[in-house]
Amino acid sequence: MYGNVIDQLIDALRCLPGVGAKSAQRMALQLLERDRVAASHLSEAIAEAVEKVGRCAECRTLTEHQVCAICSNVRRSSGEICVVENPADLYAIEQAGSFQGKYFVLLGHLSPIDGIGPEQLGIDQLIERLQSSGVTEVILATNLTVEGEATAHFIAGKAKALGVAVSRIAYGVPMGGELEYVDGGTLNIAIQSRKAL
Amino acid sequence: MYGNVIDQLIDALRCLPGVGAKSAQRMALQLLERDRVAASHLSEAIAEAVEKVGRCAECRTLTEHQVCAICSNVRRSSGEICVVENPADLYAIEQAGSFQGKYFVLLGHLSPIDGIGPEQLGIDQLIERLQSSGVTEVILATNLTVEGEATAHFIAGKAKALGVAVSRIAYGVPMGGELEYVDGGTLNIAIQSRKAL
Repeated sequence: MYGNVIDQLIDALRCLPGVGAKSAQRMALQLLERDRVAASHLSEAIAEAVEKVGRCAECRTLTEHQVCAICSNVRRSSGEICVVENPADLYAIEQAGSFQGKYFVLLGHLSPIDGIGPEQLGIDQLIERLQSSGVTEVILATNLTVEGEATAHFIAGKAKALGVAVSRIAYGVPMGGELEYVDGGTLNIAIQSRKAL
Repeated sequence: MYGNVIDQLIDALRCLPGVGAKSAQRMALQLLERDRVAASHLSEAIAEAVEKVGRCAECRTLTEHQVCAICSNVRRSSGEICVVENPADLYAIEQAGSFQGKYFVLLGHLSPIDGIGPEQLGIDQLIERLQSSGVTEVILATNLTVEGEATAHFIAGKAKALGVAVSRIAYGVPMGGELEYVDGGTLNIAIQSRKAL
């Protein structure tokens, strides 16, 4: 409608998460009307990232290096491995700041219906890592969804067979959460998982 | 935090309207984790648009051609010129489907505080167009904001001095609007601008 080139740009912008037809149009027009320098810069940044960013050979997170900054940091303990679904989860834990071990990023969760099995998640690579080095504990921090639970359960079975301690991050009421506004599922699990004082 | 290249991509994505730090991070990770083909395609589409899209020599809208499809369409009347602020406004009117004349796109509105005067809006070019061809009416469809009103008022003065009929799009209650939910400013103007039946 705006001519081929602009329409193609609008279409291409729709690959971004949360961007529909209207937002894509607004983005395309803003880039072209007001901010061509930023637009060129964005184009180059995408191209560079697509070219240079790959997966860390150790933990499978996204990185521009062979091995990511966390895996190559000798001051971090290699004894604890925290398993997460996505790089964003890894960085959420990093920002929280208390975990000093290393990670393993599945890049997804088990989902047979979408053809995602243990192979696609690199679980063999994880098992290898549990066998070879001095790993003492694997902390399962997959999401608290049905698929995340299934994935955690699957990995727990494999890790236990190797004699590695397995833990799962805690369920419960979030910090600052007012009980009145917490959903029933979370409250039930918080009561079931109560701790003796 | 994610490494230079990914951080640069996240930063670059923030130039898009409505995209903050969190959305930019989500977009970057999705592009790199799941959809590298779409990412490359997006990078190329932006670069191509930045290179090829310019302004229509006649109406100043964004187009990849010398003169846009509407200005070069001989079946459209050159007698009526509709003045809008942005290409998106032009296409909103096009999609509504009833206007058969041509357009002039200001690419903004008068805003002395931002250094945007008649020159930046190409008002000289508009006046020239009103003088040279058989223009009978100029329809002011700038936004119904203070700046849009001021811009319309300014152009109206110039056009009247040339003996061209000037009109402003109507203010009032929108189609399907329930009076109960229409704001007071709109209701007042709808009453003031009432039509005899």
